[in-house]
Amino acid sequence: MKIAEPTVARLVQYHRLLQRLHHEGQKVVSSQEMGELLNFKASQVRKDLSYFGEIGKRGVGYHVERLFKHIDEILSPPRQWKMALVGVGHLGTALLGYGAFKGTKFGINALFDNDINKVGKSFSGIPCHHISEAPSIIRDQGIEVVILTVPADVAQNCIDIIADSESIRGILNFSPVSVVVPESILVYSVDISVELEKLLFYLKQNNN
Amino acid sequence: MKIAEPTVARLVQYHRLLQRLHHEGQKVVSSQEMGELLNFKASQVRKDLSYFGEIGKRGVGYHVERLFKHIDEILSPPRQWKMALVGVGHLGTALLGYGAFKGTKFGINALFDNDINKVGKSFSGIPCHHISEAPSIIRDQGIEVVILTVPADVAQNCIDIIADSESIRGILNFSPVSVVVPESILVYSVDISVELEKLLFYLKQNNN
Repeated sequence: MKIAEPTVARLVQYHRLLQRLHHEGQKVVSSQEMGELLNFKASQVRKDLSYFGEIGKRGVGYHVERLFKHIDEILSPPRQWKMALVGVGHLGTALLGYGAFKGTKFGINALFDNDINKVGKSFSGIPCHHISEAPSIIRDQGIEVVILTVPADVAQNCIDIIADSESIRGILNFSPVSVVVPESILVYSVDISVELEKLLFYLKQNNN
Repeated sequence: MKIAEPTVARLVQYHRLLQRLHHEGQKVVSSQEMGELLNFKASQVRKDLSYFGEIGKRGVGYHVERLFKHIDEILSPPRQWKMALVGVGHLGTALLGYGAFKGTKFGINALFDNDINKVGKSFSGIPCHHISEAPSIIRDQGIEVVILTVPADVAQNCIDIIADSESIRGILNFSPVSVVVPESILVYSVDISVELEKLLFYLKQNNN
């Protein structure tokens, strides 16, 4: 079952919303209400959920806890991934401060940088090593996922250093540049300036 | 002509690649080559470009400069948008350091924060004001687009402060939370933890 990327993105958002509603003690929720809270159409919500076999009860909606547990099962990793972050600059530090990375699901085990003022120190309680040590530390700790928050001009170089490690399976690349990796590694890029260009493009369209 | 979001994202990437190739003096490029450099299928490149009336010459490819100018016309804003950034923390500072924001296309005119240690100072040459001054400064400067890089728990509050301003037309929201805005404002959210969850979901699928 290959699920399209925008669907996965919506699933993540349903998951988060349902968790919140469950914590707030809400028992049922309609596709209408979910749609309004997330800025999706109610029909989109129903379509997505029915794809996973969830049919809301007419006039009542979905059972919050059950739906949450179902989506949780679909999304949850088989275990906690072992992750490292490369590039402890402003963006890297911002990510380390994110709530998501403080949970048990997304623990970051190691940091790497080439700045000797950072190497040997800890950030958010995680030790920072020199990038040249990455191959041995990745191997020893069995790091599987790397978050790359380095400037564009050194991104490929950093990837070349880490991509040789057998344990690496995925890279989340925040550098505004296309990178080349071995076929065994899944790369997912988040290019912030592309997001801004998309917004400006739609603003221009609205303008016409 | 309503262009789907993933298509716009690819257009932005073709645009950037063509600009680079043009600077490097390359005259023609094939869909194959563009696809390889951007990790898209060549058939996807041809499909996207033919949608905008660009047909490559068989065995030769596309004229780099002409194609660049065409896509530039499609993407370019009618003029430079007047932008402000709210939240001069690690993420905000990271964005200010981005090459894209230093160009003429994306100039940021004002910064806002609630930290009195930042207010009155300049960051990347842009003055930082207290968030309470946002309504008057947005009005006086005619700010149209706001980049929001504040913690989740104050995001809606910040939006309420700025969304009343008549000149505001779009918000690029980096806070990991859904926000509510008036219908006249286009919101585009980049949720970094959603991107990470997507990567981990696909890694899990690859695992099976």
